[in-house]
Amino acid sequence: MAPIAVPKFAIAVDCAQQMVDVARKHAESLGKQVSIAVCDESGFLVAFARMDDANPSSVKIALDKAYTAATTRIATHKWFEIVTTDEQLKVGAAVGVERMIVFGGGQPIVHEGAVIGAIGVSGGHWTGDTEIGTVALDAVGARGPE
Amino acid sequence: MAPIAVPKFAIAVDCAQQMVDVARKHAESLGKQVSIAVCDESGFLVAFARMDDANPSSVKIALDKAYTAATTRIATHKWFEIVTTDEQLKVGAAVGVERMIVFGGGQPIVHEGAVIGAIGVSGGHWTGDTEIGTVALDAVGARGPE
Amino acid sequence: MAPIAVPKFAIAVDCAQQMVDVARKHAESLGKQVSIAVCDESGFLVAFARMDDANPSSVKIALDKAYTAATTRIATHKWFEIVTTDEQLKVGAAVGVERMIVFGGGQPIVHEGAVIGAIGVSGGHWTGDTEIGTVALDAVGARGPE
Amino acid sequence: MAPIAVPKFAIAVDCAQQMVDVARKHAESLGKQVSIAVCDESGFLVAFARMDDANPSSVKIALDKAYTAATTRIATHKWFEIVTTDEQLKVGAAVGVERMIVFGGGQPIVHEGAVIGAIGVSGGHWTGDTEIGTVALDAVGARGPE
Repeated sequence: MAPIAVPKFAIAVDCAQQMVDVARKHAESLGKQVSIAVCDESGFLVAFARMDDANPSSVKIALDKAYTAATTRIATHKWFEIVTTDEQLKVGAAVGVERMIVFGGGQPIVHEGAVIGAIGVSGGHWTGDTEIGTVALDAVGARGPE
Repeated sequence: MAPIAVPKFAIAVDCAQQMVDVARKHAESLGKQVSIAVCDESGFLVAFARMDDANPSSVKIALDKAYTAATTRIATHKWFEIVTTDEQLKVGAAVGVERMIVFGGGQPIVHEGAVIGAIGVSGGHWTGDTEIGTVALDAVGARGPE
Repeated sequence: MAPIAVPKFAIAVDCAQQMVDVARKHAESLGKQVSIAVCDESGFLVAFARMDDANPSSVKIALDKAYTAATTRIATHKWFEIVTTDEQLKVGAAVGVERMIVFGGGQPIVHEGAVIGAIGVSGGHWTGDTEIGTVALDAVGARGPE
Repeated sequence: MAPIAVPKFAIAVDCAQQMVDVARKHAESLGKQVSIAVCDESGFLVAFARMDDANPSSVKIALDKAYTAATTRIATHKWFEIVTTDEQLKVGAAVGVERMIVFGGGQPIVHEGAVIGAIGVSGGHWTGDTEIGTVALDAVGARGPE
């Protein structure tokens, strides 16, 4: 008989909340207003915060950045590189794949080599959104390989 | 010339986070595993937590309970009473209105008589989900009139 | 620092394929034509087969039965009992919750007390669909408690 | 205890209706047929008119232009400039963000420095649609900074 199950790991809610808090504090220190979403390895939301002056649009974008990074195992800014160096994906990936975001701000949360979730940040320019997420990843030692 | 704007109030992110924390601690004290969503008065998410063993289905239901309570200004358990005492709404409301939930767990957050957001809890039976939300509302003095 | 990850288990593809094969052979022995879906604990598809004369509608229903059973941790025929003995859920659950099926055919796959996925069968009457799924669950020793 | 609420302002219906009337009269003076949507700061519709010969497609486009401008706080013609000068957003913004329009016709309604809603015009070329919206914004003194 085949082995029935494979083990995996998912981000713990306490760690997810810590990442949201760190991201929020870092955004505050920069005077930025963002939404921060942390989801598990299957893209289901675990923790979230929208700062008081973050625009409403940032909610869905943060959720989708996290969803993209978790369910593809690839950061959204890396997806940009992938789609722009592949003619077929350039035309079809961002538009054809549900909830797919191909600009920076979504990054996998990596633990012992496995993706256990993702963080998505939205509200400012994608470069700053990505940096805020990276600070949160580093705070819990969960940044993936470049 | 007409007055250009009307004032309104939205739940502050610090208060939303506090409500999520209170709800989570109360659920833990009961041995329950739930998702808790707090959204603003327009249904946009502000704070969220899913406990480690809450089922994945609870994420969307908590979000939709909060959305329903915020955007209709009516708790989801009150919607049940409304739809079951009105033949037309009984047949058509829950199925016809986007994201509408008509069982308990979503409640408006009321401040000085105005709905400033809503809390949605999902993961257990709706009676317990509602009670967890009520504890969070009482902790910040934001429970609406019965 | 908070613990970063919580462990969980997901159905292995070999086991999922074995379940689909067992279900298909059992359906063939009964002269039935069905779709069989096995998804992981978060509702993502792992293995699937639609028999040659199974109707097209059975594809989505099998997927949604498995999705419901996995993401709520409850079999779809048990959901029927729940919603018909609870007035609020009777009115609002099946219509208000995304992809929710409340008639038989979807069952969790249980391993050492945890839901690691679900099987959904569609194409015949729900009683037969459920029985086909149960045979597959028993073949791998993964039937949940009644 | 955290402060429970943050104040904000939303476009008043009388003002929204006035903007629709001004936009419509201006379009009539130009012999143009358009749809005009005014939404609040969260993207919910407040006032709307479709002129007798405006095409059916203009309804959804006007709504989405207003939604984009309100929920991102940025005019849709400015989004064009942003996405065309940023490689990542160029590839991913218009297709990846729900209801996002990146051609002219949607503009925020600004009152005392805050976005209190947005106007979206559709039916003609985007240059004319934008100009019609601008006339309505100026009539109520609510045009944002360039």
